[in-house]
Amino acid sequence: MIRHDHGLGWVRPVRLSMPSLSDNSADMDRLLRALSGTGPCPVATFSLYQKVSRLLRQWDFAARCVLFQEGEQLQLLDILDPQGTEKALGVAVDLGTTRIVMRLVDLECREILAETVMDNPQIGLGSDILTRIHHASTDSGAEELKRLVGQAVDDGLETLCLQAGLPIEGIYVVTVSGNTAMTHLFMGLPAEHIIREPYIPVTNTPGTRRVNRFLQNTHPEGRIYFFPNIGSYFGGDLISGILYSGIHRLNETSLLVDVGTNAEVVLGNRDWLVGCAGAAGPALEGGVSSMGMTAGAGVIDRVSITGEDFTVTTIDQLPPVGICGSGFIDLAAVLFLTGMIDAKGKLVEPACGSRYIQEHGLPALVVVAAESSGTGSAITVSQASLDSLVRSKAAMYTILETIVMKVGVGFGDLEKIYVAGTFGAYIDPESAISIGMIPDLARDRYEKIGNSSLEGATLMLYGDRYMKEADAIRDRITYVELNVDQDFMIRFSGAKFIPHTDPDLFPTVRKK
Amino acid sequence: MIRHDHGLGWVRPVRLSMPSLSDNSADMDRLLRALSGTGPCPVATFSLYQKVSRLLRQWDFAARCVLFQEGEQLQLLDILDPQGTEKALGVAVDLGTTRIVMRLVDLECREILAETVMDNPQIGLGSDILTRIHHASTDSGAEELKRLVGQAVDDGLETLCLQAGLPIEGIYVVTVSGNTAMTHLFMGLPAEHIIREPYIPVTNTPGTRRVNRFLQNTHPEGRIYFFPNIGSYFGGDLISGILYSGIHRLNETSLLVDVGTNAEVVLGNRDWLVGCAGAAGPALEGGVSSMGMTAGAGVIDRVSITGEDFTVTTIDQLPPVGICGSGFIDLAAVLFLTGMIDAKGKLVEPACGSRYIQEHGLPALVVVAAESSGTGSAITVSQASLDSLVRSKAAMYTILETIVMKVGVGFGDLEKIYVAGTFGAYIDPESAISIGMIPDLARDRYEKIGNSSLEGATLMLYGDRYMKEADAIRDRITYVELNVDQDFMIRFSGAKFIPHTDPDLFPTVRKK
Repeated sequence: MIRHDHGLGWVRPVRLSMPSLSDNSADMDRLLRALSGTGPCPVATFSLYQKVSRLLRQWDFAARCVLFQEGEQLQLLDILDPQGTEKALGVAVDLGTTRIVMRLVDLECREILAETVMDNPQIGLGSDILTRIHHASTDSGAEELKRLVGQAVDDGLETLCLQAGLPIEGIYVVTVSGNTAMTHLFMGLPAEHIIREPYIPVTNTPGTRRVNRFLQNTHPEGRIYFFPNIGSYFGGDLISGILYSGIHRLNETSLLVDVGTNAEVVLGNRDWLVGCAGAAGPALEGGVSSMGMTAGAGVIDRVSITGEDFTVTTIDQLPPVGICGSGFIDLAAVLFLTGMIDAKGKLVEPACGSRYIQEHGLPALVVVAAESSGTGSAITVSQASLDSLVRSKAAMYTILETIVMKVGVGFGDLEKIYVAGTFGAYIDPESAISIGMIPDLARDRYEKIGNSSLEGATLMLYGDRYMKEADAIRDRITYVELNVDQDFMIRFSGAKFIPHTDPDLFPTVRKK
Repeated sequence: MIRHDHGLGWVRPVRLSMPSLSDNSADMDRLLRALSGTGPCPVATFSLYQKVSRLLRQWDFAARCVLFQEGEQLQLLDILDPQGTEKALGVAVDLGTTRIVMRLVDLECREILAETVMDNPQIGLGSDILTRIHHASTDSGAEELKRLVGQAVDDGLETLCLQAGLPIEGIYVVTVSGNTAMTHLFMGLPAEHIIREPYIPVTNTPGTRRVNRFLQNTHPEGRIYFFPNIGSYFGGDLISGILYSGIHRLNETSLLVDVGTNAEVVLGNRDWLVGCAGAAGPALEGGVSSMGMTAGAGVIDRVSITGEDFTVTTIDQLPPVGICGSGFIDLAAVLFLTGMIDAKGKLVEPACGSRYIQEHGLPALVVVAAESSGTGSAITVSQASLDSLVRSKAAMYTILETIVMKVGVGFGDLEKIYVAGTFGAYIDPESAISIGMIPDLARDRYEKIGNSSLEGATLMLYGDRYMKEADAIRDRITYVELNVDQDFMIRFSGAKFIPHTDPDLFPTVRKK
């Protein structure tokens, strides 16, 4: 059989020969034979057997077949009217600890029909995974966590289908990329051993399951695919992100940085992949995620300077109400380049002028005066926030430096640095380089790839071969433990200067 | 992987390495890896994921694994306490139109634990398949037929497990061999096109399904396997019978005759198989099944003669109440050899003596006098029954003659004739040859193989490789249409003499 490229779920029209005394195969056998060509025979879901004879006769022995590729086995999930307009739908889910992002696609023409995003309702039972897993070990806790997230995804499916004006029963395939713990909580699997030494999940390869075990209103024969994970530390969302970035297919070595709730870094090429995940121990507590507030209407996401005035842009162009991570990094770059903060990130009173104030007895800086603010009060950043930002940027840089050193390459050897994640999507590399958060490389080496977890899950819907690719990534990637040892702490201390104690590392910043 | 010979369902003990920081695979991955060796990874049923972590820790990372081989894919259905005595059970079902025979086996040690037989309760809605299929096309008819036979098999499972003193939930695998129509009615599939030109079933290859779609109390993750069938004429019971007989593996050509409700005949060797099934049209109405009553307590199953007295044996050694097929054939042989019937099967009054009577104005013969009978009346056979027997034996012989002629071999070329089926199991070849029902070959060429459909279904439980073998039989066998044309009728007329118009065909009978 010539293997055509097709999605995990796909639609294929067939026209069958008519049954006769000399060609009297059974109806289902005739259909499956037409679908297999000379290759292995597909398997049909049992509920189809009950209607296949009636429908084939009604449709003059033609049909549009909804297929699902499960490993080597092709599954026939449904048959649709060859003249009809029913769509076969797929949904990609980025199952985040904080947010759930979902995308509806048409499996037949590979068109994105709708997207939706929502908070993970498990947050109510604990904003971090640890608290949730503790909650899951109580009597009804696991069930409650499963119900909450399942209900949220079910609601998301409804939202998507309402937007697209299509029935939920038309959803045949759902792909889910999430971290190990979220995947366990969604599947309703015991997660308690994930957080206890030696940190053993129930499964690293949940694979393909019947979707109606987890979700309510999709097609009853629909399938759900979970990206594999590695131990308790690399989630399916990272595997999905690598898949989308394509670094595992390139000859040249590249780096993928996914900055969301945690920072995850993967370095490699077609021959090898190494990665580290999460904040590196208590020294870096808060990690890179403590920078600014969550993006939302009126939040400052860009800061630049014209003369002595800051120019800020806000989300939805509303009067400013606060500042988010990308805006904060821009601001810090501006403050450093204008001398309003020094190399240690401390506010320099003379340079700040009237912007320098005392807040709760500590130094702070006015970003937007009260009269221009959307809150009625001035928008300020405190010295404490700046200190925290400096620690976070130092953590980020140290993680990147450490992983690159571990495999014996230099930043200059990197062909590309892919920046992914909700946070990464908004960050301005120029500003991030200015404060020494990321290495000072030619700007075109940086490429933002957005929500790579969602994009990888979408890719999976479009190409069944990606299932093997995801498994191959999982099998190939080596986990690098970021020991917070003396060497690490020395590098971390060096990175706590802006841009760095070694300014030669940031030539373009020195020039400015 | 060295592929070990194992059953469709089987049990394998494993002992796992203990998880540690340096070997932190997930629990299920650890288990599946141990089961796969270097081969492809088995797939575990989802419900196992919920308990695997708890049970592995409880059992010190050892378990007895219940496995099911589905095509190339190994399925892990359950894990059992490595120290426990729980058994993994399998059930073979011969799903006959008239009777259902079931056998319980231990999948681990391949021991038969119990057997049971019951009438097919669908008989109440029609003794023949045609009537049942007509009933199935009424509104609730199909559902009713499915419920009746499903309930009967469920009852059978209960009986088997009661006999063996084991729980029904221990049944992990059920294999079913039945004809095309019975398989459809059991599965609840529309059967109406099976009986209408061009006679198209819903499926010829139902394959493996989850047993809880059809049966109530087996293990929830259990599997059910249905033997494939060919068109509407060759059922899975015949494929199962061929599998058990082994004629498809032999160099020499052999014949398999399965005489149950219908006669089915298969001729062939390792290179080719041809077969014909059922009675051959209206000329043979009643086929070979109209001979005598169904076997049961007090029914005469053997007849011989000592001097002028018949010696009869009855089932359960009770006073005689009637005569069944095998007894009737014995009787006819005795009557012919003693001259009490002539070559046309007509009663010869002088030879019969006082046994000759008139019943309802027609000649009849007293087999057992009223005083020795269990009914209080004499047990008789009428001339009409004898005429019917002659037609039946002629049909049988003509079918065998025709199929052998079609492929250009002679009876003498046959290495073996395997006689199967409930009827075939009791027939005495000596008597059957005497009346010219089966060819006059050396008696050791005949081999009775009992309920080959049940035996084939049992074999399937014991060896997953038989699944491929059953498919290969299905693909290889050629259906020979027994046209009731002039040639056939000429041969049929010749066979209506006892033993035959051409006595040279029956040299040993002539000698007697």
